[in-house]
Amino acid sequence: MQALVLERKRQLSLRDIDLPLNIGPQDVKIRINTVGICGSDVHYYTHGHIGPYVVDKPMILGHEASGVIVEVGSAVKDLKPGDRVCMEPGIPNPHSKASKLGLYNIDPEVIFWATPPVHGCLTPLVIHPAAFTYKIPENVSFGESAMVEPLAIGLQAATKAKIVPGDVALVIGAGTIGIMVALAALAGGCSQVFIADLQQQKLEIASRYVGITPINITQQDLVATISDATAGWGVDIVCEASGSAKAYSNLFDAVRPGGAVVFVGCPIEPVTFDIVKAQSKEVRMETVFRYANIFDRALNLIASGKVDLKPLISETFPFNRSIEAFDRAAEARATDIKLQIRIDGEFV
Amino acid sequence: MQALVLERKRQLSLRDIDLPLNIGPQDVKIRINTVGICGSDVHYYTHGHIGPYVVDKPMILGHEASGVIVEVGSAVKDLKPGDRVCMEPGIPNPHSKASKLGLYNIDPEVIFWATPPVHGCLTPLVIHPAAFTYKIPENVSFGESAMVEPLAIGLQAATKAKIVPGDVALVIGAGTIGIMVALAALAGGCSQVFIADLQQQKLEIASRYVGITPINITQQDLVATISDATAGWGVDIVCEASGSAKAYSNLFDAVRPGGAVVFVGCPIEPVTFDIVKAQSKEVRMETVFRYANIFDRALNLIASGKVDLKPLISETFPFNRSIEAFDRAAEARATDIKLQIRIDGEFV
Amino acid sequence: MQALVLERKRQLSLRDIDLPLNIGPQDVKIRINTVGICGSDVHYYTHGHIGPYVVDKPMILGHEASGVIVEVGSAVKDLKPGDRVCMEPGIPNPHSKASKLGLYNIDPEVIFWATPPVHGCLTPLVIHPAAFTYKIPENVSFGESAMVEPLAIGLQAATKAKIVPGDVALVIGAGTIGIMVALAALAGGCSQVFIADLQQQKLEIASRYVGITPINITQQDLVATISDATAGWGVDIVCEASGSAKAYSNLFDAVRPGGAVVFVGCPIEPVTFDIVKAQSKEVRMETVFRYANIFDRALNLIASGKVDLKPLISETFPFNRSIEAFDRAAEARATDIKLQIRIDGEFV
Amino acid sequence: MQALVLERKRQLSLRDIDLPLNIGPQDVKIRINTVGICGSDVHYYTHGHIGPYVVDKPMILGHEASGVIVEVGSAVKDLKPGDRVCMEPGIPNPHSKASKLGLYNIDPEVIFWATPPVHGCLTPLVIHPAAFTYKIPENVSFGESAMVEPLAIGLQAATKAKIVPGDVALVIGAGTIGIMVALAALAGGCSQVFIADLQQQKLEIASRYVGITPINITQQDLVATISDATAGWGVDIVCEASGSAKAYSNLFDAVRPGGAVVFVGCPIEPVTFDIVKAQSKEVRMETVFRYANIFDRALNLIASGKVDLKPLISETFPFNRSIEAFDRAAEARATDIKLQIRIDGEFV
Repeated sequence: MQALVLERKRQLSLRDIDLPLNIGPQDVKIRINTVGICGSDVHYYTHGHIGPYVVDKPMILGHEASGVIVEVGSAVKDLKPGDRVCMEPGIPNPHSKASKLGLYNIDPEVIFWATPPVHGCLTPLVIHPAAFTYKIPENVSFGESAMVEPLAIGLQAATKAKIVPGDVALVIGAGTIGIMVALAALAGGCSQVFIADLQQQKLEIASRYVGITPINITQQDLVATISDATAGWGVDIVCEASGSAKAYSNLFDAVRPGGAVVFVGCPIEPVTFDIVKAQSKEVRMETVFRYANIFDRALNLIASGKVDLKPLISETFPFNRSIEAFDRAAEARATDIKLQIRIDGEFV
Repeated sequence: MQALVLERKRQLSLRDIDLPLNIGPQDVKIRINTVGICGSDVHYYTHGHIGPYVVDKPMILGHEASGVIVEVGSAVKDLKPGDRVCMEPGIPNPHSKASKLGLYNIDPEVIFWATPPVHGCLTPLVIHPAAFTYKIPENVSFGESAMVEPLAIGLQAATKAKIVPGDVALVIGAGTIGIMVALAALAGGCSQVFIADLQQQKLEIASRYVGITPINITQQDLVATISDATAGWGVDIVCEASGSAKAYSNLFDAVRPGGAVVFVGCPIEPVTFDIVKAQSKEVRMETVFRYANIFDRALNLIASGKVDLKPLISETFPFNRSIEAFDRAAEARATDIKLQIRIDGEFV
Repeated sequence: MQALVLERKRQLSLRDIDLPLNIGPQDVKIRINTVGICGSDVHYYTHGHIGPYVVDKPMILGHEASGVIVEVGSAVKDLKPGDRVCMEPGIPNPHSKASKLGLYNIDPEVIFWATPPVHGCLTPLVIHPAAFTYKIPENVSFGESAMVEPLAIGLQAATKAKIVPGDVALVIGAGTIGIMVALAALAGGCSQVFIADLQQQKLEIASRYVGITPINITQQDLVATISDATAGWGVDIVCEASGSAKAYSNLFDAVRPGGAVVFVGCPIEPVTFDIVKAQSKEVRMETVFRYANIFDRALNLIASGKVDLKPLISETFPFNRSIEAFDRAAEARATDIKLQIRIDGEFV
Repeated sequence: MQALVLERKRQLSLRDIDLPLNIGPQDVKIRINTVGICGSDVHYYTHGHIGPYVVDKPMILGHEASGVIVEVGSAVKDLKPGDRVCMEPGIPNPHSKASKLGLYNIDPEVIFWATPPVHGCLTPLVIHPAAFTYKIPENVSFGESAMVEPLAIGLQAATKAKIVPGDVALVIGAGTIGIMVALAALAGGCSQVFIADLQQQKLEIASRYVGITPINITQQDLVATISDATAGWGVDIVCEASGSAKAYSNLFDAVRPGGAVVFVGCPIEPVTFDIVKAQSKEVRMETVFRYANIFDRALNLIASGKVDLKPLISETFPFNRSIEAFDRAAEARATDIKLQIRIDGEFV
């Protein structure tokens, strides 16, 4: 079967690869329609590894996907051929201690699309557990559905934040994930979200949404701006979504007494914190690793119109131009939020 | 000073009444601008009492108010004359056990505007603690601000519900409070809110808001409708806002396993529950009594555009037509959501 | 294989019955050692049904069990033959929506030992999923381990209560489950637990534990006693574990403002509540259905000495006297807390 | 009035000092009985400052105190002369935003005994708000009551940890606060608490309590020990109570997926964290600053016997030997957990 295969660092090919397609009783077979390109895909492409995960044999890329069911396993009840679906790319051990607790995303045994040595989904057909395959509402497109995965990270952050209705949030970083977090915080109950970045173009895209206020930290002092906007009290929630080492230096200055800081971004190296300052405000800190029990919520929020992802799909490439799509993604243009690849033209 | 005084059941007068107006160090003096008419005001007017609270001597009505500060006490720091404000009508003992816990709304010692024997605020000048007086954002009108009080009840319900972003809710009752709860649930993180009532006109007003779906229970089976809409799973949250005895019979059929039921409405008599059914889904039940730490959140949500109260202000009467306003309120027209009285024409 | 079979109402026999004993890859085979007799077993024996669950064909009784593993399935990693274990009697669908949320106890698809038509475990050998089979610490006996199941209900209640360290609780009902709830509340962080009942003998057994204070409601006014003991404030937590209709009439008088009521007991008919009183204190109500993710916690609490179940094992019968044991249980002696049946003498 | 005054670094005197003793309507006057010596008192004595708090004029030391009420203000209802009491040493602004939220401990306006420039309580008579003065149960001594303050820090940590009954905890640091945290975690619902330190003598004192297991990190690998004890899963809760920079390096290795880390200790400098490791387990981090709404809980736990502080009172000095007591405290003997000063011999 054709697939977009990362052979080794910076070496992509669109070629045939042998994939087992036997369907278990709890599985479904899906014809892939759209796959988004994630920063992690690009990182594997340009660096060949992410931390301890090394691409040391050919691996299919892609984990943000939507498609159509073509076959269901013998025990599958809630899905049927023809259903439009999107897929949660991580598959836990359903019998593990973490899964029993509902924390299946942090099950140490989880396997995840396009995380070596597991193949991703940039290929026309995949097998997936029905339990992690979600029906798409009628008014939601394949392109939007293929963005449920990054939105789910934002919603996991918004869930962990334990937003009280009317909270004010600050999101640090206006990249794709930062914007997802900001939209999730707004949809999840915040009255207002500040978003801080160095790049004016990204801030402009984010601030087209009602309720999102940009802070360009090359021009404005972040802590002073937040203090002014909150009468010196601070925001209820800070979400760190940049991973930039500098961002960690003043998180606790921006948050209110009793507020929360949510760590979404992944800094390359350990970062330094002023714990005593956090203690003086009894700040709660939460950390986010992917998502659990979020995909259906994300789809509901898109369907109801509370989250509009359409303006963030910057360009869609046909499958045969996948390598071009990855090279464009590797450019990291400030105006590109999400690039997608369309595999199957017949289900638009 | 002029005031709208309830002399006894169905006997209102607009007349002078002696009120102490000495300002303490932590107090502010406020020139009232707008006062909303609440169901409880109307109930005192038509019945002379609510449960154990009896109007046995003349009492000024009104507790949903906005206005302008004209004087501040010696210890007040965050407010100044000229500030546009709205007021939380309950005043707790700040030294009580409940207040120390942050539960000042359920402090047994709380006193509350227009709850006998405490006077309300349908009068041009009031004294109030600065701690329970909130600055109105520039883009929020006096009329909207005088609706912060009922919205705060909705937001207290949404807060107690502990909404997870993307939750689906059902609100039973499309009266003023039911609509407030629905708007609060949407603003507070729900993707979709069903609202059920017998009156088509109320449902039509509610369903003008994007995300609110009406269920006319004279025509549709409530539980079947919810089951269909949620693939048999049930809604995450049910808010009972009707107080109708019948409504309590099938609450636990509509909610999902692990969901929550929030009791906002006040049934006249004790109601009957099927506890075993609630247990089979481990339903959590929350109860709401007014609000605490909500007014600033409500104002932020109005200011940011996430909650639009303007379509709900059905008519505004001048102070000298207050009695007419109360008679109109007592009619309980299905198309009247909120009637308000404007006291001070100079601050529109 | 021999088993204690309920043929029909009041008709028990100890006889051979055909049971499939094929072991799946995720399963273990267990030689049963001890089985406790639960009120539900007795109810099936004396009434032939519990609500909609009818014993309409022969069914093995028993669901509170401990034993020794004799064989493990091919995929089982954490257990091995010879391990002493106790078993969670409910088996959910691990792929269901409830299981993914960690709420596997309220999975509508759960099957449960000795709940018709599912056989129980009063038989020498059973097959069970490894994920619901727990290793017993060395210093915990088979008898204590067979009581983990009822203790787990108490701990589920204590978990739902969200005890804040030092809370004071009231448990209504000093039957086996009431005592389990009281012990769980104490072990789970309460400083003091009041337990109320009509039967002096049960209260005496309960109050042998340090920290448990009995209230004999035939002699003392419950609400007045609690009010006196808490300076008029009320207890932080009330756990209803009697299922008696009368108990529901004054729950909200005993609890403090902002406190919680946990419903453990199962009333035979719907019960009547004073919602307005609950609202005036913003009482949170929680409901309990069995347990999830509790067995390992229960075993840790027994092993550490924080929960001592030994005084509650009133008598242990050999397997061949099972019917006598059930007749004794049906007598409901006030001094019998837990009767158990020992199947396998070789593993004491 | 006589008082123990810190004149400047390492310069203590027991001498007369002028103190206002006018009692407000919400205040009580207390004859001090016992005052514990806290690490912060000793730090002011030996260093003259703690961070930004500098002793630049004579200041009375002491903030862990118990005594007897001798007079009550005109508005005080729940206390009377003769009541044995202990006192919460921080006084917030009851009208502040933080206080309204129930977060009075992190009210930026709080004033606190023996934190410059505020005098402490090592003097025979003090004035204090009734709202922060707590009656001592009959079976609790003045010495124990004067330890409620450090125990309250432990209980604040246990509260923030949101212990689920049966959790297993690791406390890092077996100093006075570490032991308080361990006792609070046990009393607050943990089944077992590991406590790690370098000093064998401190570990021996801690491990006299049933349920506390010592780990001497000069001899045992902390992470390996925890891994072995928890079958590789990790503890549910880690409480950092050492403030030692090294301790922060492997916190996230010891905690389980979905577990919590509570920061109690105050490191002298910002510390370095591996956020990505915390994220891979979605660790929640909580921070502790003193306590709020804890003193009554602490007293209940001591009275019920769940927390036994008596073995931790290493020696009690009479008031006239206060300076000797501070010099002994400054020695930091491994066998001294708490030194106290008795001011008023007549109330033993």
